Amino acid sequence: MSGSPNGSTAVDAAPGIAGLLRPRSVAIVGASERSLWCQSLVHNLDSLGFDGDLHLVNPRGGVLNGRPVVENLGALAGHGIDTAFVLLKGDRVLPALEQAAEIGVRNAVVLASGFAEAGDAGRERQAAITRLAAESGMAVLGPNSIGTLNLVDGVGLFASGLEGLPPAGGVALVSQSGGMARALVALAAARDIGMSHVVTTGNESVVDAATAVDTLVDEPSTRCIALFVEAIRDPQRFVRAARRAERAGVPLVVLKVGRSEAGRKVSAAHTGSLAGDPAVVAGVLRQLGAVAVDSFEDLIGTAGLLAHTGRLPGRRVAFLSGSGGRCNVIADTAEAAGVPLAPLSPPTAAAVGATLGTELTVTNPLDVTGAFVTDRTVFGRILESVAGDPELDVIVVGLDLPERSTPAAARLEELFGDLRAIAARSATPILVMETFHSELNEERRAVRRRLGLDHTLNGVRHGMTALAGALWWSARPAPVEVADAADGGDAGAGAVAAVQPGRPLSEWDARRVLEPFGVPFVPADLATTVDEAVESARRIDGPVVMKVCSPQLTHKTEHGGVLLGVDGDGEVAAGFDRLVRSAAEHIGSKPEGVLVSPQRPPGVELIVGTSDHPEWGPLLTVGLGGVWAEALRDTAWRVLPVTRHDVEDMLGELRGAALLDGWRGQPAADRDRLVDAVLAIAAAGQRLAGRVAAVEVNPLLVRGSLVEGLDALVVARED
Amino acid sequence: MSGSPNGSTAVDAAPGIAGLLRPRSVAIVGASERSLWCQSLVHNLDSLGFDGDLHLVNPRGGVLNGRPVVENLGALAGHGIDTAFVLLKGDRVLPALEQAAEIGVRNAVVLASGFAEAGDAGRERQAAITRLAAESGMAVLGPNSIGTLNLVDGVGLFASGLEGLPPAGGVALVSQSGGMARALVALAAARDIGMSHVVTTGNESVVDAATAVDTLVDEPSTRCIALFVEAIRDPQRFVRAARRAERAGVPLVVLKVGRSEAGRKVSAAHTGSLAGDPAVVAGVLRQLGAVAVDSFEDLIGTAGLLAHTGRLPGRRVAFLSGSGGRCNVIADTAEAAGVPLAPLSPPTAAAVGATLGTELTVTNPLDVTGAFVTDRTVFGRILESVAGDPELDVIVVGLDLPERSTPAAARLEELFGDLRAIAARSATPILVMETFHSELNEERRAVRRRLGLDHTLNGVRHGMTALAGALWWSARPAPVEVADAADGGDAGAGAVAAVQPGRPLSEWDARRVLEPFGVPFVPADLATTVDEAVESARRIDGPVVMKVCSPQLTHKTEHGGVLLGVDGDGEVAAGFDRLVRSAAEHIGSKPEGVLVSPQRPPGVELIVGTSDHPEWGPLLTVGLGGVWAEALRDTAWRVLPVTRHDVEDMLGELRGAALLDGWRGQPAADRDRLVDAVLAIAAAGQRLAGRVAAVEVNPLLVRGSLVEGLDALVVARED
Repeated sequence: MSGSPNGSTAVDAAPGIAGLLRPRSVAIVGASERSLWCQSLVHNLDSLGFDGDLHLVNPRGGVLNGRPVVENLGALAGHGIDTAFVLLKGDRVLPALEQAAEIGVRNAVVLASGFAEAGDAGRERQAAITRLAAESGMAVLGPNSIGTLNLVDGVGLFASGLEGLPPAGGVALVSQSGGMARALVALAAARDIGMSHVVTTGNESVVDAATAVDTLVDEPSTRCIALFVEAIRDPQRFVRAARRAERAGVPLVVLKVGRSEAGRKVSAAHTGSLAGDPAVVAGVLRQLGAVAVDSFEDLIGTAGLLAHTGRLPGRRVAFLSGSGGRCNVIADTAEAAGVPLAPLSPPTAAAVGATLGTELTVTNPLDVTGAFVTDRTVFGRILESVAGDPELDVIVVGLDLPERSTPAAARLEELFGDLRAIAARSATPILVMETFHSELNEERRAVRRRLGLDHTLNGVRHGMTALAGALWWSARPAPVEVADAADGGDAGAGAVAAVQPGRPLSEWDARRVLEPFGVPFVPADLATTVDEAVESARRIDGPVVMKVCSPQLTHKTEHGGVLLGVDGDGEVAAGFDRLVRSAAEHIGSKPEGVLVSPQRPPGVELIVGTSDHPEWGPLLTVGLGGVWAEALRDTAWRVLPVTRHDVEDMLGELRGAALLDGWRGQPAADRDRLVDAVLAIAAAGQRLAGRVAAVEVNPLLVRGSLVEGLDALVVARED
Repeated sequence: MSGSPNGSTAVDAAPGIAGLLRPRSVAIVGASERSLWCQSLVHNLDSLGFDGDLHLVNPRGGVLNGRPVVENLGALAGHGIDTAFVLLKGDRVLPALEQAAEIGVRNAVVLASGFAEAGDAGRERQAAITRLAAESGMAVLGPNSIGTLNLVDGVGLFASGLEGLPPAGGVALVSQSGGMARALVALAAARDIGMSHVVTTGNESVVDAATAVDTLVDEPSTRCIALFVEAIRDPQRFVRAARRAERAGVPLVVLKVGRSEAGRKVSAAHTGSLAGDPAVVAGVLRQLGAVAVDSFEDLIGTAGLLAHTGRLPGRRVAFLSGSGGRCNVIADTAEAAGVPLAPLSPPTAAAVGATLGTELTVTNPLDVTGAFVTDRTVFGRILESVAGDPELDVIVVGLDLPERSTPAAARLEELFGDLRAIAARSATPILVMETFHSELNEERRAVRRRLGLDHTLNGVRHGMTALAGALWWSARPAPVEVADAADGGDAGAGAVAAVQPGRPLSEWDARRVLEPFGVPFVPADLATTVDEAVESARRIDGPVVMKVCSPQLTHKTEHGGVLLGVDGDGEVAAGFDRLVRSAAEHIGSKPEGVLVSPQRPPGVELIVGTSDHPEWGPLLTVGLGGVWAEALRDTAWRVLPVTRHDVEDMLGELRGAALLDGWRGQPAADRDRLVDAVLAIAAAGQRLAGRVAAVEVNPLLVRGSLVEGLDALVVARED
């Protein structure tokens, strides 16, 4: 992959799919007149202008659509075939692939269903394909793949009918589902959004979506990659591929389905794989800078916008429209989508007000009123003013394409002419937003060409979602390399050594493991005698909290192992005795001791922890504590390692985040300290990965500048 | 309005707009060749086939498009003109309307802008129109109206270009914005959704959206009314009109804009009116059975579906599709939209499994797999099985219309043929859902006609929203007449008398006002002496709560007027003295006494209250208490009176509603008792309306079957 336009090397030694995008010599194995798949495949290769060799294979031989059919793939040895498209079913797939490998075929597509999604026999059939590919180095798409499209080079290696083709352009599409790929291509065609490639990965026995992304990042024509994903096959590879795309500046837009309970069932039935936890997937996609969407319209619309604009210069957006009603819809939709409405700078507002000459307030969205129907110069003068405003980054004009030859259409064409002229001079990008999601029929395509428009936002609803996604992606900080293992220093090394497989850790142990990483805790003494406890409490101003400490008692509260508001020598001494006696009853021996800490005033309580996920690897989770947070499942997830930005973003994601800004007279949280504390826990979890099943600080108390863990848990791995 | 097909009488004596839907003789005042508005108006009247008289008026006289132009409206006296379309500007509108009134014109449309939305002078101009209409009984649309469309009778009284016309059908549209009406008509045309009427109400100087709804409910062609509303001019009239629509079985689908802060600014600038509080509007729309949507696509899609299906028989929906990917998207989208996925009955699942002959699990959504491409009978047999399932209410088939003459398209046409045949026999409605939002060009329209389809759901995303809306509307309980004032009995009458303008009420007073309505409270004694307090506390098992009681001290907690966990005679006596002394310091005199109540264990705390809204009238609000609820603004609103269903719905709306189902071992709330308590508070608030500014029970404690107000507040009106 050296010399790739995007600079870095592919994430895997596994075969990429470049060969599948540009095959030179294709054999269709199982070619048949009666197969709609075969007919579509041949039709697509021909109609897109495939200029390599095409061979048809079927034991019956004969002639198909004027092409000779050979009886056996082996007969084509020496013809330099690089790609086999296998239309055979079930048991006949593997022998065909084996034969292909023998004659040196490097790439294959397997159409058949009935593999991992269909019981044990199917799973075994699929595993055999995976083994064959590993041995032969063959890049296999499928089973359940309908192939690839390459609109840049004109290769229709695609075994399904296409309803209209989009122009060649910057959106590459990866879809596990062939049917959905077909629908998405039709949608791009209907919206005139240019596409470069389509890759359908099906069951992903060999090539998965991550590998496809990895190859597509290196294609010079790729400006954005759209993904339709039902299951993330290899989460860690997906993370690596997405990070590489981010470094290369190629945005990913992802429609991940199987989020619902029912969807996960369907997904398992359909692809034979388990989809990920939706909360984790959502968090990781954000972390990776992938724009998550939830409809076909938004997938194609957002990818199309990003391919058109690339990185937007900033988030200050102004909207203009000639209808107050549309301005109103734009305002609501922008707010709901999180698109900020920037105020016009005072000179701009004054200039616009003078042009409009009314008492209307100059707002954003800016209602240029029906005045432009009366005086055609009004629109241009206003747009000129707004385009010259140095305090704006993006301008969106709500205007529909003129249709039919009416006098109003003629006036609209004039306005678009003005718009084009101003956009050509403007340093600020100017986008056009239609009112509703529409398709570009031949008439509208002609109008767009005449007007020199090559992109429009597809209606207020979907256009706003696309804009929100593009603004979010554009405002992401530049990716930073995060060390794969955080440095805990010598202390960290000592801490790591303290964690031994199968050995439970007490709260005191857990604190000593986490403290070297900089995790802040409420001060605590471990008292092993009544006198030590009293001595400790005397050093503390005000009442204390006493907690029994033992590796065997991790659920202290439930066992009456915590005393709050203990005040004075007598109470402390009595408390010590009570805790030790009660613990001894539970665990049958004397506990390690009793922790004595100052009692803290109430604040916002967070739960911060790391855990080892079987597929994603070590994960960080941050949530708000308490009953409400539980009821709302208010938790954010990221894979480790995390950046400071990631943690800030996690905190912003919590629905109860407003509580951190202060409530009922409580001070606002010191966010920097809070982020430091979470980063320290993350660093510990990462350094300890492999040794621990989980690390948890719960609660992490936040009250103004006070950020302290009040309890700690480190769970060593079992084995 | 007697003899209306929908039975009841119109909500107002104000002039309806029936005359504007079926004018017989129209005068265009301010007709001009140079006016695009005029040209569009004449064009629309002609092209829709207006068969009444059309007169053009302009002081310059002459001939316009072959029609004579009279110089003065007065010259048309005696011509029986019933409708004037006034294209004049600003100051010239009122004289034209006066002249129209003189010659007996009953209906008018005013196009001009620059009225209430444009400063004091404009507001005065608009008020003059309102006065004139009141005196003359004229029904006036506008200012800022572009008129009406009547597609049933072919009347295009519409002064704006139309991009395609939908077929005549069951959706009536009311829009305050003319520009948005135009766009929505184009959208309906693009989706082939039949419309009956369009009414643009503009600034609503006389006829508002509620009046338009009221007239349209009586039109026999109306099957659903779609509303695009920027501001609800007269909330109480809107409520009456919506309730009448509900009784008539005509669903309302509402896109209410101006929800965002920015939107409210735009709305105020555009229409000169203040939009309502979004939380209140959302609650009231739910209460009225109006389906609230948030995009143009969903407005037209939902209205189109409801006009097509009417009331659906139930909420058990099954989805079928030939693509696992699409099933997956359907499952996620259904869950997000709240569309329940019903399990197939075991016999149906068995029959489907036998037809598919695979090991695939039979799920809903049901992946019929690509098998139907191989064997065309598979699809029909499966659909037949599912359509015969008595445990399903609605079946949705995910299939796209065939396009182009490909072999695959021919197969698809066969499937649609099977679908039509099965749907004709099926008692269960069968709907077709396309993959993405698409338009019906001439080719697709022809395909639909050939296939006998007159409705398809417009893509998974928008089709699902439409389906969710239709299911929700269909499942609404039949509207019940709620008495306009709840009966509090004699006790209620006494309670009402206790509330006097400007007289503050203590907690004890408030309890006595609310108790006769059945509001449950924690037991309390009002102790006026130490001995009484001790005596009261002795009768209570366990610790007590003591609260100072005085009309002057409504914020007791903040003034240290509440003591928790008071236990034993000594503490009670000391507490009494402390509370009375502290209160006396604050208010300068002896308080009414001290309330003594049992201390309750923790539970879920709600805030329930009524308040008098300047526009909506008395409102009920229910929210969860505590810091989290405040941070999330988790509150539901309804107008009074409310039904039991309304209150149940409010509780379900709260994001923290899960807490009522029990948490951390706490028992689930007795919902019936809780609803009784809220209804009692609502009844009190309603009976006291006019006398009170607010009634509040905060907290209303809920813990299993314990439902008790712990505090009460009744605020008498000032005057």
